[in-house]
Amino acid sequence: MTFQDKLKTAVPSGIGLCVGLDPVVAKMPAKFQSSPTPLFDFCRDLIDATKDFASAYKPNAAFFEVYGADGWQQLKDTVAAIPSDKIKIIDAKRGDIGSTAEAYADALFGYLKGDATTLSPYLGGDAIQPFLKKPEFGGYLLAVTSNPGGADLQELLIDNEPLYLHVVRLAKKLAINQNVGLVVGATRQSLWAKLLETAVDLPLLIPGVGAQGGDPVSLREMLRDYPGVALVNSSRDIIYASQKDDYQSAARDAAAKLSNLLTGK
Amino acid sequence: MTFQDKLKTAVPSGIGLCVGLDPVVAKMPAKFQSSPTPLFDFCRDLIDATKDFASAYKPNAAFFEVYGADGWQQLKDTVAAIPSDKIKIIDAKRGDIGSTAEAYADALFGYLKGDATTLSPYLGGDAIQPFLKKPEFGGYLLAVTSNPGGADLQELLIDNEPLYLHVVRLAKKLAINQNVGLVVGATRQSLWAKLLETAVDLPLLIPGVGAQGGDPVSLREMLRDYPGVALVNSSRDIIYASQKDDYQSAARDAAAKLSNLLTGK
Repeated sequence: MTFQDKLKTAVPSGIGLCVGLDPVVAKMPAKFQSSPTPLFDFCRDLIDATKDFASAYKPNAAFFEVYGADGWQQLKDTVAAIPSDKIKIIDAKRGDIGSTAEAYADALFGYLKGDATTLSPYLGGDAIQPFLKKPEFGGYLLAVTSNPGGADLQELLIDNEPLYLHVVRLAKKLAINQNVGLVVGATRQSLWAKLLETAVDLPLLIPGVGAQGGDPVSLREMLRDYPGVALVNSSRDIIYASQKDDYQSAARDAAAKLSNLLTGK
Repeated sequence: MTFQDKLKTAVPSGIGLCVGLDPVVAKMPAKFQSSPTPLFDFCRDLIDATKDFASAYKPNAAFFEVYGADGWQQLKDTVAAIPSDKIKIIDAKRGDIGSTAEAYADALFGYLKGDATTLSPYLGGDAIQPFLKKPEFGGYLLAVTSNPGGADLQELLIDNEPLYLHVVRLAKKLAINQNVGLVVGATRQSLWAKLLETAVDLPLLIPGVGAQGGDPVSLREMLRDYPGVALVNSSRDIIYASQKDDYQSAARDAAAKLSNLLTGK
Protein backbone atom coordinates (compact mmCIF):
# COMPACT_ATOMS: atom_id res chain seq x y z
CA MET A 1 0.00 0.00 0.00
CA THR A 2 1.38 3.48 -0.81
CA PHE A 3 2.05 5.88 2.03
CA GLN A 4 -0.72 8.12 0.72
CA ASP A 5 -3.20 5.24 0.87
CA LYS A 6 -2.02 4.25 4.35
CA LEU A 7 -2.66 7.85 5.48
CA LYS A 8 -6.12 8.01 3.95
CA THR A 9 -7.07 4.68 5.52
CA ALA A 10 -5.72 5.53 8.96
CA VAL A 11 -7.13 9.08 9.00
CA PRO A 12 -10.45 8.97 7.13
CA SER A 13 -11.63 12.34 8.47
CA GLY A 14 -8.43 14.07 7.32
CA ILE A 15 -7.29 15.02 10.82
CA GLY A 16 -6.11 12.55 13.42
CA LEU A 17 -4.22 12.12 16.66
CA CYS A 18 -0.61 11.00 16.69
CA VAL A 19 0.68 9.79 20.05
CA GLY A 20 4.33 10.65 20.56
CA LEU A 21 6.31 7.96 22.37
CA ASP A 22 9.13 9.68 24.27
CA PRO A 23 9.88 7.16 27.01
CA VAL A 24 11.93 8.47 29.95
CA VAL A 25 12.35 5.89 32.71
CA ALA A 26 12.46 8.44 35.56
CA LYS A 27 9.03 9.76 34.53
CA MET A 28 7.35 6.33 34.36
CA PRO A 29 5.21 4.71 37.08
CA ALA A 30 7.26 2.88 39.73
CA LYS A 31 6.73 -0.63 38.40
CA PHE A 32 8.74 0.11 35.23
CA GLN A 33 11.82 1.24 37.16
CA SER A 34 12.89 -2.36 37.74
CA SER A 35 11.98 -3.74 34.31
CA PRO A 36 14.86 -4.91 32.08
CA THR A 37 12.99 -3.41 29.08
CA PRO A 38 11.18 -0.38 30.52
CA LEU A 39 11.04 1.59 27.24
CA PHE A 40 9.26 -1.18 25.41
CA ASP A 41 7.03 -2.21 28.32
CA PHE A 42 5.87 1.37 28.90
CA CYS A 43 5.28 2.13 25.22
CA ARG A 44 3.39 -1.13 24.68
CA ASP A 45 1.05 -0.31 27.58
CA LEU A 46 0.51 3.22 26.24
CA ILE A 47 -0.21 1.97 22.72
CA ASP A 48 -2.74 -0.49 24.16
CA ALA A 49 -4.39 2.23 26.22
CA THR A 50 -4.74 4.79 23.42
CA LYS A 51 -5.27 2.78 20.25
CA ASP A 52 -9.00 3.51 20.02
CA PHE A 53 -8.22 7.22 19.60
CA ALA A 54 -4.86 7.34 17.79
CA SER A 55 -4.35 7.31 14.02
CA ALA A 56 -0.57 7.25 14.33
CA TYR A 57 2.29 6.68 16.75
CA LYS A 58 5.58 8.51 16.71
CA PRO A 59 8.41 6.94 18.72
CA ASN A 60 11.28 9.40 19.04
CA ALA A 61 14.57 7.62 18.34
CA ALA A 62 16.58 9.78 20.77
CA PHE A 63 14.92 8.35 23.88
CA PHE A 64 15.80 4.83 22.77
CA GLU A 65 19.30 5.60 21.43
CA VAL A 66 20.35 6.86 24.84
CA TYR A 67 20.31 3.15 25.84
CA GLY A 68 22.41 2.20 22.82
CA ALA A 69 22.08 -1.27 21.29
CA ASP A 70 19.56 -2.34 23.93
CA GLY A 71 17.52 0.80 23.28
CA TRP A 72 17.47 0.10 19.56
CA GLN A 73 16.10 -3.39 20.20
CA GLN A 74 13.35 -1.86 22.35
CA LEU A 75 12.61 0.69 19.61
CA LYS A 76 12.20 -2.13 17.08
CA ASP A 77 9.93 -4.02 19.50
CA THR A 78 7.91 -0.85 20.15
CA VAL A 79 7.30 -0.26 16.44
CA ALA A 80 6.23 -3.91 16.12
CA ALA A 81 3.68 -3.39 18.94
CA ILE A 82 1.86 -0.63 17.01
CA PRO A 83 -1.31 -2.02 15.37
CA SER A 84 -0.92 -2.44 11.61
CA ASP A 85 -3.74 0.01 10.75
CA LYS A 86 -1.87 2.91 12.41
CA ILE A 87 0.81 5.08 10.81
CA LYS A 88 4.22 4.34 12.34
CA ILE A 89 6.40 7.46 12.25
CA ILE A 90 9.98 7.09 13.46
CA ASP A 91 10.89 10.59 14.63
CA ALA A 92 14.59 10.59 13.78
CA LYS A 93 15.16 13.90 11.94
CA ARG A 94 17.79 12.25 9.78
CA GLY A 95 19.45 13.75 6.73
CA ASP A 96 22.69 12.90 4.96
CA ILE A 97 24.06 12.58 1.45
CA GLY A 98 23.73 9.79 -1.12
CA SER A 99 24.60 6.31 0.08
CA THR A 100 24.49 7.44 3.73
CA ALA A 101 20.89 8.58 3.36
CA GLU A 102 20.10 5.21 1.77
CA ALA A 103 21.58 3.42 4.80
CA TYR A 104 19.44 5.56 7.13
CA ALA A 105 16.34 4.81 5.04
CA ASP A 106 17.10 1.06 5.26
CA ALA A 107 17.50 1.37 9.03
CA LEU A 108 14.19 3.22 9.47
CA PHE A 109 11.97 1.43 6.98
CA GLY A 110 13.75 -1.93 6.60
CA TYR A 111 15.07 -2.74 10.06
CA LEU A 112 12.68 -0.75 12.27
CA LYS A 113 9.71 -1.15 9.88
CA GLY A 114 8.46 2.41 10.16
CA ASP A 115 6.00 3.81 7.61
CA ALA A 116 7.52 7.28 7.71
CA THR A 117 10.18 9.42 9.31
CA THR A 118 11.00 13.05 9.95
CA LEU A 119 13.73 14.61 7.81
CA SER A 120 15.99 17.63 8.13
CA PRO A 121 16.05 19.74 4.93
CA TYR A 122 19.37 21.61 5.28
CA LEU A 123 21.34 19.29 2.98
CA GLY A 124 18.93 19.83 0.10
CA GLY A 125 16.88 17.72 -2.28
CA ASP A 126 19.41 15.04 -3.21
CA ALA A 127 19.85 14.18 0.47
CA ILE A 128 16.09 13.74 0.91
CA GLN A 129 15.28 11.75 -2.23
CA PRO A 130 16.79 8.44 -0.99
CA PHE A 131 14.15 8.38 1.75
CA LEU A 132 11.35 8.83 -0.80
CA LYS A 133 12.21 6.29 -3.47
CA LYS A 134 9.56 3.79 -2.42
CA PRO A 135 5.96 5.09 -2.47
CA GLU A 136 5.14 2.84 0.53
CA PHE A 137 7.26 4.99 2.85
CA GLY A 138 6.95 8.68 3.63
CA GLY A 139 9.09 11.53 4.87
CA TYR A 140 7.96 14.60 6.81
CA LEU A 141 10.33 17.48 6.10
CA LEU A 142 10.98 19.93 8.95
CA ALA A 143 9.45 23.25 7.84
CA VAL A 144 8.37 25.18 10.95
CA THR A 145 9.42 23.65 14.25
CA SER A 146 7.73 24.22 17.60
CA ASN A 147 10.76 25.49 19.58
CA PRO A 148 11.46 29.20 20.16
CA GLY A 149 14.83 28.95 18.34
CA GLY A 150 13.02 27.67 15.25
CA ALA A 151 12.86 31.25 14.01
CA ASP A 152 16.71 31.59 14.00
CA LEU A 153 16.96 30.29 10.44
CA GLN A 154 13.42 29.30 9.41
CA GLU A 155 12.07 32.86 9.34
CA LEU A 156 14.99 34.53 7.56
CA LEU A 157 13.67 36.33 4.48
CA ILE A 158 14.81 35.41 0.97
CA ASP A 159 13.24 37.66 -1.67
CA ASN A 160 10.64 38.63 0.94
CA GLU A 161 9.81 34.99 1.56
CA PRO A 162 10.85 33.17 4.74
CA LEU A 163 13.14 30.17 4.42
CA TYR A 164 10.45 27.74 5.56
CA LEU A 165 8.36 28.51 2.47
CA HIS A 166 11.36 27.54 0.33
CA VAL A 167 11.40 24.27 2.24
CA VAL A 168 7.70 23.82 1.48
CA ARG A 169 8.39 24.39 -2.24
CA LEU A 170 11.27 21.90 -2.08
CA ALA A 171 8.88 19.37 -0.52
CA LYS A 172 6.32 19.97 -3.31
CA LYS A 173 9.04 19.37 -5.89
CA LEU A 174 10.09 16.11 -4.24
CA ALA A 175 6.53 14.80 -3.85
CA ILE A 176 6.36 12.83 -7.10
CA ASN A 177 5.39 9.69 -5.14
CA GLN A 178 2.88 11.60 -2.98
CA ASN A 179 4.92 10.57 0.05
CA VAL A 180 6.32 13.90 1.27
CA GLY A 181 4.83 15.79 4.17
CA LEU A 182 5.76 18.72 6.38
CA VAL A 183 6.46 19.16 10.08
CA VAL A 184 4.67 22.33 11.18
CA GLY A 185 4.70 23.40 14.82
CA ALA A 186 1.35 24.23 16.42
CA THR A 187 3.06 26.94 18.46
CA ARG A 188 3.64 29.18 15.45
CA GLN A 189 0.13 29.54 14.03
CA SER A 190 0.73 33.11 12.84
CA LEU A 191 2.78 31.58 10.00
CA TRP A 192 0.15 29.08 9.01
CA ALA A 193 -2.04 30.88 6.48
CA LYS A 194 0.74 31.40 3.94
CA LEU A 195 2.21 28.01 4.74
CA LEU A 196 -1.00 26.07 4.08
CA GLU A 197 -1.56 28.00 0.85
CA THR A 198 1.94 27.04 -0.38
CA ALA A 199 1.67 23.44 0.81
CA VAL A 200 -1.60 23.03 -1.19
CA ASP A 201 -2.35 19.49 0.03
CA LEU A 202 0.86 18.04 1.48
CA PRO A 203 0.37 15.83 4.55
CA LEU A 204 1.17 17.59 7.83
CA LEU A 205 2.67 16.38 11.08
CA ILE A 206 1.93 18.92 13.79
CA PRO A 207 3.86 18.86 17.08
CA GLY A 208 3.57 21.40 19.87
CA VAL A 209 -0.03 20.94 20.99
CA GLY A 210 -0.71 20.91 24.73
CA ALA A 211 2.41 21.01 26.94
CA GLN A 212 4.22 23.18 24.37
CA GLY A 213 1.33 25.62 24.09
CA GLY A 214 -0.50 24.98 20.79
CA ASP A 215 -4.31 25.10 21.00
CA PRO A 216 -6.14 22.15 19.38
CA VAL A 217 -9.41 23.98 18.74
CA SER A 218 -7.87 26.88 16.83
CA LEU A 219 -5.80 24.28 14.98
CA ARG A 220 -8.96 22.49 13.87
CA GLU A 221 -10.36 25.81 12.64
CA MET A 222 -7.26 26.59 10.61
CA LEU A 223 -7.29 23.15 9.01
CA ARG A 224 -11.03 23.11 8.27
CA ASP A 225 -10.61 23.58 4.50
CA TYR A 226 -7.14 22.08 4.10
CA PRO A 227 -7.32 19.04 1.81
CA GLY A 228 -4.15 17.26 3.04
CA VAL A 229 -4.10 14.70 5.88
CA ALA A 230 -3.01 16.25 9.19
CA LEU A 231 -1.63 14.28 12.13
CA VAL A 232 -1.56 16.26 15.36
CA ASN A 233 1.04 14.96 17.79
CA SER A 234 0.87 14.95 21.55
CA SER A 235 3.47 13.22 23.68
CA ARG A 236 3.87 14.29 27.32
CA ASP A 237 0.22 15.25 27.93
CA ILE A 238 -0.84 11.72 27.03
CA ILE A 239 1.93 9.34 28.02
CA TYR A 240 2.63 11.06 31.34
CA ALA A 241 -1.01 11.99 32.07
CA SER A 242 -0.51 10.05 35.30
CA GLN A 243 2.63 8.57 36.78
CA LYS A 244 0.64 6.38 39.16
CA ASP A 245 -1.05 3.01 38.69
CA ASP A 246 -3.85 4.62 36.65
CA TYR A 247 -1.40 5.66 33.88
CA GLN A 248 -3.26 3.68 31.26
CA SER A 249 -6.75 5.02 31.95
CA ALA A 250 -5.35 8.55 32.34
CA ALA A 251 -3.58 8.24 28.96
CA ARG A 252 -6.73 6.88 27.37
CA ASP A 253 -8.78 9.78 28.72
CA ALA A 254 -6.23 12.35 27.55
CA ALA A 255 -6.09 10.77 24.08
CA ALA A 256 -9.89 10.67 23.85
CA LYS A 257 -10.19 14.30 24.90
CA LEU A 258 -7.62 15.58 22.41
CA SER A 259 -8.96 13.42 19.60
CA ASN A 260 -12.46 14.78 20.22
CA LEU A 261 -11.24 18.38 20.27
CA LEU A 262 -9.44 17.81 16.97
CA THR A 263 -12.29 16.13 15.16
CA GLY A 264 -14.97 18.35 16.70
CA LYS A 265 -16.88 15.48 18.29
CA MET B 1 40.26 17.94 28.82
CA THR B 2 38.21 20.49 26.87
CA PHE B 3 37.34 19.74 23.26
CA GLN B 4 39.50 22.65 22.19
CA ASP B 5 42.49 21.19 24.05
CA LYS B 6 41.83 17.72 22.62
CA LEU B 7 41.87 19.25 19.12
CA LYS B 8 45.10 21.16 19.70
CA THR B 9 46.79 18.07 21.11
CA ALA B 10 45.61 15.75 18.34
CA VAL B 11 46.33 18.24 15.53
CA PRO B 12 49.43 20.21 16.56
CA SER B 13 50.06 21.53 13.03
CA GLY B 14 46.51 22.89 12.75
CA ILE B 15 45.54 20.63 9.85
CA GLY B 16 45.07 16.90 10.11
CA LEU B 17 43.58 13.84 8.48
CA CYS B 18 40.25 12.42 9.63
CA VAL B 19 39.52 8.88 8.45
CA GLY B 20 35.82 8.37 7.77
CA LEU B 21 34.55 4.93 8.80
CA ASP B 22 31.64 4.07 6.49
CA PRO B 23 31.62 0.26 6.68
CA VAL B 24 29.63 -1.50 3.94
CA VAL B 25 29.94 -5.29 4.12
CA ALA B 26 29.60 -5.85 0.36
CA LYS B 27 32.62 -3.62 -0.26
CA MET B 28 34.89 -5.32 2.29
CA PRO B 29 37.53 -7.98 1.56
CA ALA B 30 36.11 -11.50 1.38
CA LYS B 31 37.15 -12.62 4.86
CA PHE B 32 34.76 -10.15 6.54
CA GLN B 33 31.73 -11.47 4.69
CA SER B 34 31.40 -14.39 7.12
CA SER B 35 32.24 -12.50 10.31
CA PRO B 36 29.46 -12.09 12.89
CA THR B 37 30.73 -8.55 13.56
CA PRO B 38 32.07 -7.37 10.18
CA LEU B 39 31.54 -3.64 10.82
CA PHE B 40 33.64 -3.66 13.95
CA ASP B 41 36.29 -6.09 12.63
CA PHE B 42 36.80 -4.06 9.46
CA CYS B 43 36.89 -0.69 11.23
CA ARG B 44 39.31 -1.99 13.89
CA ASP B 45 41.71 -3.20 11.19
CA LEU B 46 41.46 0.13 9.34
CA ILE B 47 42.08 2.12 12.52
CA ASP B 48 45.13 -0.05 13.22
CA ALA B 49 46.43 0.44 9.69
CA THR B 50 46.05 4.22 9.54
CA LYS B 51 46.66 5.43 13.09
CA ASP B 52 50.16 6.77 12.36
CA PHE B 53 48.66 9.29 9.92
CA ALA B 54 45.20 10.08 11.29
CA SER B 55 44.38 12.81 13.81
CA ALA B 56 40.72 11.83 13.98
CA TYR B 57 38.23 9.11 13.09
CA LYS B 58 34.66 9.68 12.01
CA PRO B 59 32.39 6.65 12.12
CA ASN B 60 29.13 7.41 10.29
CA ALA B 61 26.18 6.20 12.38
CA ALA B 62 24.02 5.37 9.34
CA PHE B 63 26.19 2.43 8.24
CA PHE B 64 25.89 0.88 11.71
CA GLU B 65 22.20 1.71 12.29
CA VAL B 66 21.24 -0.25 9.21
CA TYR B 67 22.06 -3.34 11.35
CA GLY B 68 19.92 -2.05 14.21
CA ALA B 69 20.76 -3.03 17.79
CA ASP B 70 23.65 -5.22 16.66
CA GLY B 71 25.03 -2.38 14.55
CA TRP B 72 24.86 -0.01 17.50
CA GLN B 73 26.90 -2.43 19.59
CA GLN B 74 29.50 -2.56 16.80
CA LEU B 75 29.51 1.24 16.61
CA LYS B 76 30.21 1.44 20.35
CA ASP B 77 33.01 -1.15 20.01
CA THR B 78 34.45 0.74 17.02
CA VAL B 79 34.61 4.01 18.94
CA ALA B 80 36.32 2.15 21.81
CA ALA B 81 38.95 0.85 19.36
CA ILE B 82 40.05 4.37 18.38
CA PRO B 83 43.27 5.35 20.23
CA SER B 84 42.64 7.83 23.03
CA ASP B 85 44.85 10.54 21.51
CA LYS B 86 42.63 10.78 18.41
CA ILE B 87 39.47 12.86 18.04
CA LYS B 88 36.38 10.60 17.89
CA ILE B 89 33.67 12.21 15.79
CA ILE B 90 30.34 10.40 15.57
CA ASP B 91 28.90 11.56 12.26
CA ALA B 92 25.21 11.50 13.13
CA LYS B 93 23.88 14.86 11.87
CA ARG B 94 21.41 14.97 14.75
CA GLY B 95 19.26 17.90 15.75
CA ASP B 96 16.10 18.08 17.83
CA ILE B 97 14.50 20.26 20.47
CA GLY B 98 15.13 20.51 24.22
CA SER B 99 15.04 17.25 26.13
CA THR B 100 15.24 15.24 22.90
CA ALA B 101 18.53 16.90 21.98
CA GLU B 102 19.78 16.11 25.48
CA ALA B 103 18.94 12.44 24.98
CA TYR B 104 20.83 12.43 21.66
CA ALA B 105 23.82 14.10 23.33
CA ASP B 106 23.80 11.44 26.06
CA ALA B 107 23.69 8.72 23.41
CA LEU B 108 26.60 10.17 21.43
CA PHE B 109 28.90 11.35 24.23
CA GLY B 110 27.76 9.17 27.16
CA TYR B 111 26.91 5.80 25.64
CA LEU B 112 29.07 5.84 22.49
CA LYS B 113 31.82 7.93 24.09
CA GLY B 114 32.44 10.20 21.11
CA ASP B 115 34.34 13.48 21.52
CA ALA B 116 32.22 15.30 18.97
CA THR B 117 29.34 14.95 16.54
CA THR B 118 27.93 16.61 13.45
CA LEU B 119 24.77 18.70 13.91
CA SER B 120 22.03 19.93 11.62
CA PRO B 121 21.29 23.66 12.12
CA TYR B 122 17.73 23.95 10.77
CA LEU B 123 16.03 23.86 14.20
CA GLY B 124 18.06 26.83 15.45
CA GLY B 125 20.25 27.65 18.42
CA ASP B 126 18.19 26.21 21.27
CA ALA B 127 18.25 22.80 19.55
CA ILE B 128 22.04 22.89 19.27
CA GLN B 129 22.93 24.16 22.76
CA PRO B 130 22.17 20.86 24.58
CA PHE B 131 25.01 19.25 22.59
CA LEU B 132 27.45 21.98 23.68
CA LYS B 133 26.83 22.22 27.42
CA LYS B 134 29.99 20.36 28.38
CA PRO B 135 33.26 21.89 27.13
CA GLU B 136 34.75 18.36 26.79
CA PHE B 137 32.49 17.58 23.84
CA GLY B 138 32.16 19.35 20.52
CA GLY B 139 29.63 19.84 17.75
CA TYR B 140 30.33 20.53 14.08
CA LEU B 141 27.42 22.43 12.58
CA LEU B 142 26.58 21.72 8.93
CA ALA B 143 27.35 24.92 7.02
CA VAL B 144 28.32 24.01 3.44
CA THR B 145 27.85 20.35 2.53
CA SER B 146 29.70 18.51 -0.23
CA ASN B 147 26.68 17.26 -2.21
CA PRO B 148 25.32 19.04 -5.33
CA GLY B 149 21.92 19.61 -3.66
CA GLY B 150 23.67 21.45 -0.84
CA ALA B 151 23.05 24.67 -2.74
CA ASP B 152 19.24 24.18 -2.65
CA LEU B 153 18.92 26.01 0.67
CA GLN B 154 22.47 26.82 1.79
CA GLU B 155 23.12 29.37 -0.97
CA LEU B 156 19.80 31.21 -0.80
CA LEU B 157 20.48 34.92 -0.26
CA ILE B 158 19.25 36.76 2.81
CA ASP B 159 20.14 40.49 2.69
CA ASN B 160 22.74 39.60 0.04
CA GLU B 161 24.27 36.99 2.31
CA PRO B 162 23.87 33.27 1.70
CA LEU B 163 22.15 31.17 4.37
CA TYR B 164 25.35 29.28 5.22
CA LEU B 165 26.96 32.50 6.48
CA HIS B 166 24.03 32.94 8.85
CA VAL B 167 24.77 29.42 10.08
CA VAL B 168 28.42 30.41 10.60
CA ARG B 169 27.29 33.43 12.64
CA LEU B 170 24.95 31.20 14.66
CA ALA B 171 27.90 28.88 15.35
CA LYS B 172 30.05 31.84 16.49
CA LYS B 173 27.29 32.89 18.86
CA LEU B 174 27.01 29.39 20.33
CA ALA B 175 30.77 28.93 20.76
CA ILE B 176 31.02 30.18 24.35
CA ASN B 177 32.73 26.92 25.35
CA GLN B 178 35.03 26.94 22.29
CA ASN B 179 33.48 23.65 21.25
CA VAL B 180 31.57 24.56 18.08
CA GLY B 181 32.95 23.83 14.64
CA LEU B 182 31.68 23.87 11.07
CA VAL B 183 31.25 21.22 8.39
CA VAL B 184 32.50 22.73 5.13
CA GLY B 185 32.57 20.65 1.94
CA ALA B 186 35.85 20.61 -0.01
CA THR B 187 33.85 20.47 -3.25
CA ARG B 188 32.61 24.03 -2.90
CA GLN B 189 35.85 26.00 -2.55
CA SER B 190 34.48 29.03 -4.40
CA LEU B 191 32.52 29.80 -1.24
CA TRP B 192 35.47 29.48 1.08
CA ALA B 193 37.07 32.93 1.18
CA LYS B 194 34.01 34.63 2.68
CA LEU B 195 33.27 31.63 4.84
CA LEU B 196 36.72 31.50 6.47
CA GLU B 197 36.61 35.25 7.06
CA THR B 198 33.28 34.91 8.89
CA ALA B 199 34.32 31.79 10.81
CA VAL B 200 37.41 33.66 12.13
CA ASP B 201 38.92 30.65 13.94
CA LEU B 202 36.18 28.04 14.37
CA PRO B 203 37.34 24.43 13.99
CA LEU B 204 36.52 22.93 10.59
CA LEU B 205 35.55 19.43 9.51
CA ILE B 206 36.04 19.12 5.76
CA PRO B 207 34.46 16.25 3.82
CA GLY B 208 34.51 15.81 0.05
CA VAL B 209 38.22 15.36 -0.63
CA GLY B 210 39.22 12.65 -3.11
CA ALA B 211 36.35 10.46 -4.37
CA GLN B 212 33.93 13.42 -4.17
CA GLY B 213 36.29 15.73 -6.08
CA GLY B 214 37.90 18.13 -3.59
CA ASP B 215 41.62 18.77 -4.14
CA PRO B 216 43.82 18.48 -1.01
CA VAL B 217 46.63 20.73 -2.27
CA SER B 218 44.41 23.72 -3.06
CA LEU B 219 42.70 23.07 0.27
CA ARG B 220 46.04 23.37 2.08
CA GLU B 221 46.69 26.66 0.28
CA MET B 222 43.32 28.09 1.27
CA LEU B 223 43.85 27.12 4.91
CA ARG B 224 47.44 28.38 5.11
CA ASP B 225 46.62 31.44 7.24
CA TYR B 226 43.49 30.12 8.93
CA PRO B 227 44.03 29.97 12.70
CA GLY B 228 41.37 27.32 13.51
CA VAL B 229 42.04 23.57 13.59
CA ALA B 230 40.98 21.83 10.34
CA LEU B 231 40.24 18.12 10.03
CA VAL B 232 40.09 16.92 6.44
CA ASN B 233 38.02 13.79 6.06
CA SER B 234 38.50 10.97 3.60
CA SER B 235 36.46 7.79 3.73
CA ARG B 236 36.20 5.65 0.59
CA ASP B 237 39.64 6.49 -0.84
CA ILE B 238 41.25 5.13 2.30
CA ILE B 239 39.07 2.37 3.70
CA TYR B 240 38.36 0.83 0.29
CA ALA B 241 41.82 1.55 -1.20
CA SER B 242 41.98 -2.20 -1.80
CA GLN B 243 39.29 -4.83 -1.40
CA LYS B 244 41.87 -7.63 -1.47
CA ASP B 245 44.12 -9.09 1.25
CA ASP B 246 46.37 -6.02 1.13
CA TYR B 247 43.54 -3.73 2.35
CA GLN B 248 45.51 -2.65 5.41
CA SER B 249 48.73 -1.68 3.64
CA ALA B 250 46.73 -0.01 0.86
CA ALA B 251 44.76 2.01 3.43
CA ARG B 252 47.96 2.94 5.24
CA ASP B 253 49.53 4.14 1.99
CA ALA B 254 46.45 6.15 1.04
CA ALA B 255 46.30 7.76 4.50
CA ALA B 256 50.02 8.58 4.41
CA LYS B 257 49.73 10.12 0.96
CA LEU B 258 46.76 12.32 1.82
CA SER B 259 48.24 13.34 5.19
CA ASN B 260 51.47 14.38 3.46
CA LEU B 261 49.58 16.39 0.81
CA LEU B 262 47.65 18.17 3.54
CA THR B 263 50.60 19.00 5.76
CA GLY B 264 52.94 19.75 2.85
CA LYS B 265 55.51 17.11 3.81
